Amino acid sequence: MVGIGVVGYGYWGPNIVRNFQGARFGSVKCICDTAPKSLERAKQYHPEIKVTTDFDTLLGDPEIDAVAIVTPVQTHYPLARRALMRGKHVFVEKPFTQSTAQAEELIEMAAESQLKIMVDHTFLFTPAVRKIKELIDNDVLGRLYYYDSMRVNLGLFQSDVNVIWDLAAHDLSIMQHILPRKPEAVVAAGQRHVNGVEDVAYIMVYFADNVIAHFNVNWLSPVKVRTTLIGGSKKMLVWNDLEADEKIKVYDKGVSTDDGAGLYDILVSYRMGDVWIPRLEQAEALRLETQYFFECIENDRTPFNDGVAGLRVVQMLEAANASLKNKGGVVYL
Amino acid sequence: MVGIGVVGYGYWGPNIVRNFQGARFGSVKCICDTAPKSLERAKQYHPEIKVTTDFDTLLGDPEIDAVAIVTPVQTHYPLARRALMRGKHVFVEKPFTQSTAQAEELIEMAAESQLKIMVDHTFLFTPAVRKIKELIDNDVLGRLYYYDSMRVNLGLFQSDVNVIWDLAAHDLSIMQHILPRKPEAVVAAGQRHVNGVEDVAYIMVYFADNVIAHFNVNWLSPVKVRTTLIGGSKKMLVWNDLEADEKIKVYDKGVSTDDGAGLYDILVSYRMGDVWIPRLEQAEALRLETQYFFECIENDRTPFNDGVAGLRVVQMLEAANASLKNKGGVVYL
Amino acid sequence: MVGIGVVGYGYWGPNIVRNFQGARFGSVKCICDTAPKSLERAKQYHPEIKVTTDFDTLLGDPEIDAVAIVTPVQTHYPLARRALMRGKHVFVEKPFTQSTAQAEELIEMAAESQLKIMVDHTFLFTPAVRKIKELIDNDVLGRLYYYDSMRVNLGLFQSDVNVIWDLAAHDLSIMQHILPRKPEAVVAAGQRHVNGVEDVAYIMVYFADNVIAHFNVNWLSPVKVRTTLIGGSKKMLVWNDLEADEKIKVYDKGVSTDDGAGLYDILVSYRMGDVWIPRLEQAEALRLETQYFFECIENDRTPFNDGVAGLRVVQMLEAANASLKNKGGVVYL
Amino acid sequence: MVGIGVVGYGYWGPNIVRNFQGARFGSVKCICDTAPKSLERAKQYHPEIKVTTDFDTLLGDPEIDAVAIVTPVQTHYPLARRALMRGKHVFVEKPFTQSTAQAEELIEMAAESQLKIMVDHTFLFTPAVRKIKELIDNDVLGRLYYYDSMRVNLGLFQSDVNVIWDLAAHDLSIMQHILPRKPEAVVAAGQRHVNGVEDVAYIMVYFADNVIAHFNVNWLSPVKVRTTLIGGSKKMLVWNDLEADEKIKVYDKGVSTDDGAGLYDILVSYRMGDVWIPRLEQAEALRLETQYFFECIENDRTPFNDGVAGLRVVQMLEAANASLKNKGGVVYL
Repeated sequence: MVGIGVVGYGYWGPNIVRNFQGARFGSVKCICDTAPKSLERAKQYHPEIKVTTDFDTLLGDPEIDAVAIVTPVQTHYPLARRALMRGKHVFVEKPFTQSTAQAEELIEMAAESQLKIMVDHTFLFTPAVRKIKELIDNDVLGRLYYYDSMRVNLGLFQSDVNVIWDLAAHDLSIMQHILPRKPEAVVAAGQRHVNGVEDVAYIMVYFADNVIAHFNVNWLSPVKVRTTLIGGSKKMLVWNDLEADEKIKVYDKGVSTDDGAGLYDILVSYRMGDVWIPRLEQAEALRLETQYFFECIENDRTPFNDGVAGLRVVQMLEAANASLKNKGGVVYL
Repeated sequence: MVGIGVVGYGYWGPNIVRNFQGARFGSVKCICDTAPKSLERAKQYHPEIKVTTDFDTLLGDPEIDAVAIVTPVQTHYPLARRALMRGKHVFVEKPFTQSTAQAEELIEMAAESQLKIMVDHTFLFTPAVRKIKELIDNDVLGRLYYYDSMRVNLGLFQSDVNVIWDLAAHDLSIMQHILPRKPEAVVAAGQRHVNGVEDVAYIMVYFADNVIAHFNVNWLSPVKVRTTLIGGSKKMLVWNDLEADEKIKVYDKGVSTDDGAGLYDILVSYRMGDVWIPRLEQAEALRLETQYFFECIENDRTPFNDGVAGLRVVQMLEAANASLKNKGGVVYL
Repeated sequence: MVGIGVVGYGYWGPNIVRNFQGARFGSVKCICDTAPKSLERAKQYHPEIKVTTDFDTLLGDPEIDAVAIVTPVQTHYPLARRALMRGKHVFVEKPFTQSTAQAEELIEMAAESQLKIMVDHTFLFTPAVRKIKELIDNDVLGRLYYYDSMRVNLGLFQSDVNVIWDLAAHDLSIMQHILPRKPEAVVAAGQRHVNGVEDVAYIMVYFADNVIAHFNVNWLSPVKVRTTLIGGSKKMLVWNDLEADEKIKVYDKGVSTDDGAGLYDILVSYRMGDVWIPRLEQAEALRLETQYFFECIENDRTPFNDGVAGLRVVQMLEAANASLKNKGGVVYL
Repeated sequence: MVGIGVVGYGYWGPNIVRNFQGARFGSVKCICDTAPKSLERAKQYHPEIKVTTDFDTLLGDPEIDAVAIVTPVQTHYPLARRALMRGKHVFVEKPFTQSTAQAEELIEMAAESQLKIMVDHTFLFTPAVRKIKELIDNDVLGRLYYYDSMRVNLGLFQSDVNVIWDLAAHDLSIMQHILPRKPEAVVAAGQRHVNGVEDVAYIMVYFADNVIAHFNVNWLSPVKVRTTLIGGSKKMLVWNDLEADEKIKVYDKGVSTDDGAGLYDILVSYRMGDVWIPRLEQAEALRLETQYFFECIENDRTPFNDGVAGLRVVQMLEAANASLKNKGGVVYL
């Protein structure tokens, strides 16, 4: 049984506590927040859990084997560092850190002490993403052509990070999880209009074999869109996360070429077949993820969404920011 | 009354002929195509119009004041050049030419001989684009933030031009027509998967005052999308060209900032109001455009979609291609 | 301050308790359920509220001024009757009773003792229904033509009532609330396929002045539909309750006739104008309704969704069932 | 080779002529219309076809084996009767006749003279209806529960027939074609608001084995809807005819009952599986139908959409009208 302490009980913290508390193989022993008001709320919903405003008190608690860090991104590195130094496994909100250097240091520390790091990319545990990964792993789509995602809506503006670090962090982690190849280079363009950080941005990621990914993120859209297109040589897929029941459509569509037709012409012909909407399992992603964290600790397994996976997302975010400053310009990873 | 000759009677030519023939202030006098089979079809539908396989015969016809060039893009420049040299007004398919140099030369020739050039950007005459232009001209949207368009579907693959020159040419011309400012720089990324030209591409265009435009074009999408989002400080707009009746939605949504709130924070608040779907007039774009060409010649007026407008689109296409080759470096216009 | 007791803590009861508990002007004093397991759950979430398995204990509690009856429909009448006899105001789940005779008796009892009855037609308190009522009250739609609603999905099958008493009860109460006229006759047709009660049914209601209403309810539909069309001489309205943000669309569309055109012909011409999607307020219906019940008791006001309103719905349900048995004969109200 | 004469060259006639003229195994020999202006149009598009204002001239033409009657419904019977008496096969617009008596007489006449009658229910030849029939014939849907169609839009108002004879005629013919059973009884309700005929109507049709059909037709709807739901024990189907590419969705959804559960309860459990969107062939319905008429004559085969099929639709229309007058009583067929 794993004992976990949770630091940060603001917007997302209550969900984390509730799910860790309901998971098998572990339970929440202490909640830490510097705001007394947050602790009062914690006390009300979870009278069985200790609370403290002092992170060192939490770290010193002998019941605690792991720490969940549910605080703003700029505090991820110092808090995770202190937790790892005290021999605690670490569960960190996304994005993992503010820089690759920070991420690499934490990964090294954890490796030396044989501690686990898990980065909370909750989307990876949704039934939709699990199904898409299964389809790609089983080569249902064939050779991949592109990954194209759009995540736009009005708000919520953040003042400390731009729209890339806020919204694209989701899609970059999903893409990295389901695409069986390493990104090679990043290009990004964007603009700021309202509060001094980019609120509209477009990111392109290059891969080997002509695979390209594209991310459209926008805090200033009048309509909410959460759609991803994935094109392959055998099948193509549309994932609309706003659909209640029919989130994933698999299209038996494609093109084929016949270059025997002539010396100069490549004839393109089209294949138009049925559409298939696979039934998705009913499961709560955060419940699966928190459970999985406990299981990885209990069974000494490395989670797939570990520090290294978190680092790869931070690398792309960092590269995107660098390209953004340069108004586009390719940044190799 | 303007007499016009049409060169090229393949896929688009019959529409051009039919619309010029039905327009007031002019009529089609001759159709030219090198394929006898095309001329047979022309003869069948339009027994009243002369046909020829020889462009010089068409140019020598004293009834002909203007020439419509409805041929592949690589022939636009030589054909338009010959027509202008023989003193004919010119109507050219989009994109205007293959290069800015060609476009500039044609514009100069026309100016010297006081001849008109019109580039067939048919979309500019659709009720939807006319309504959007009216809204922006009347400052309904307020200060502009972004212009974001998506034009994707499966096929039709072309072998001579990539997806940018094929699909983005439409959106760049529309954007240029309705946005009251000059583009400053272009970034583009894309990939080729099937027949040696880019079939997936993303283009970003920078403007003054933090306005940014973005174009997603794709020949390999399983679903057809024709959607443009335009964000402004007062209103935001979604144009879905695939909707039968409700193509344009105007959202009374937006954000405002209050920086009196504190030293370090900029508070962002949201405005969510009604949505308005303006009724669009019923009009056929190509009919309006062909009619307008005759009127401009008759009344000696410069069309808004003249050679200079066509040149600006070619400049952006050229810049996008240059950026594409560079994997996304910024290209200043 | 009103003290209320809630009887029935199954599927819907917890929502009722939570909302009454959060409302101003009153609070929940006791929860009654015959299932000890339900009371355990009640105890866990609301340790501050007394629980009992005995309805008479609840009725005898001097703190209790009103009783909320959240039990299956066949128990509404006996429980409400006992509550009224003990001088308690009554809040009853929909449908009010199993028969008009029961409803009339309860209304009379309440009137004699000057007690309030409110029937829980929650939909009447939703922002969408409030907006539609406002539009009709302000004559925005003009002379009404028809009211046409569709409420279909897969399940939830009930064994004690058919799909009319389950689903159409919602729509009949909404229609009656917003249409400013009395229904005159009912026709219904339906079929049973699965568990012995009708799972598919169609109801038509006749009104004066050629107004007609139609209800399509179905427990066996593969897709979920919650759409109502209302046609009027000035405007027409579509309410799609499954839309997140754009539930109500008001169409400036209609027809007009010109019978001066000829002796035998009535020419019909069409008006096609803009569409308007009014912004709806953000409000939780059940919170508004429970609050409103307390207010009506405190201020001795008759709620609009009182026993008489509940009776009118039961009358239509009863008539629909009678017509159903007759395979569709008209039943006058 | 079949020679056909077409009477009526108004709104639909040109489509009929064009398709018969392009079909194999026959051609149009003569067009008859009492309006000289219609004949002028006919002459312009089809200079190769004779025209006449006199129906007897057409009937007397020895080149003519069959007559297509494309005129208002009240003229179908007298014109078809004259054609049959002159030994011509007959192709008649839907609805077949104004009454069952008329239809029966024509069927008898044709039988005696061994002539073919085909009623133009074009929808039966669409790829969507052919696919649905195939699914039902192959028992993909299992035991049928219901057939529920909605066909509503604004206009086109007709002055001689009501919305049932106009719009429901389509759906009744489709239902009769794909449902493998005989309708037993009809109930209908509706209202008139604009020009003296019913513009809103609802029709229910009863079949054996608890199958029920329902038709919602409306000329006064602000939105256009063309949707049919078909529920079966194995699969359920939604046909949305307004979708460009994904007209038919087959849902692997259903319910099953387990009455071993208890003496009084029937437990209903739900099955939720994948959705399948079959690819439809690309074919023009009217071309297939006109071709099929010629083939039936050439090969002496009885068309499935013969007079008897047309009669069954007229029987239901007549019954619906009778029920309508009665405000909804059941009318047995």
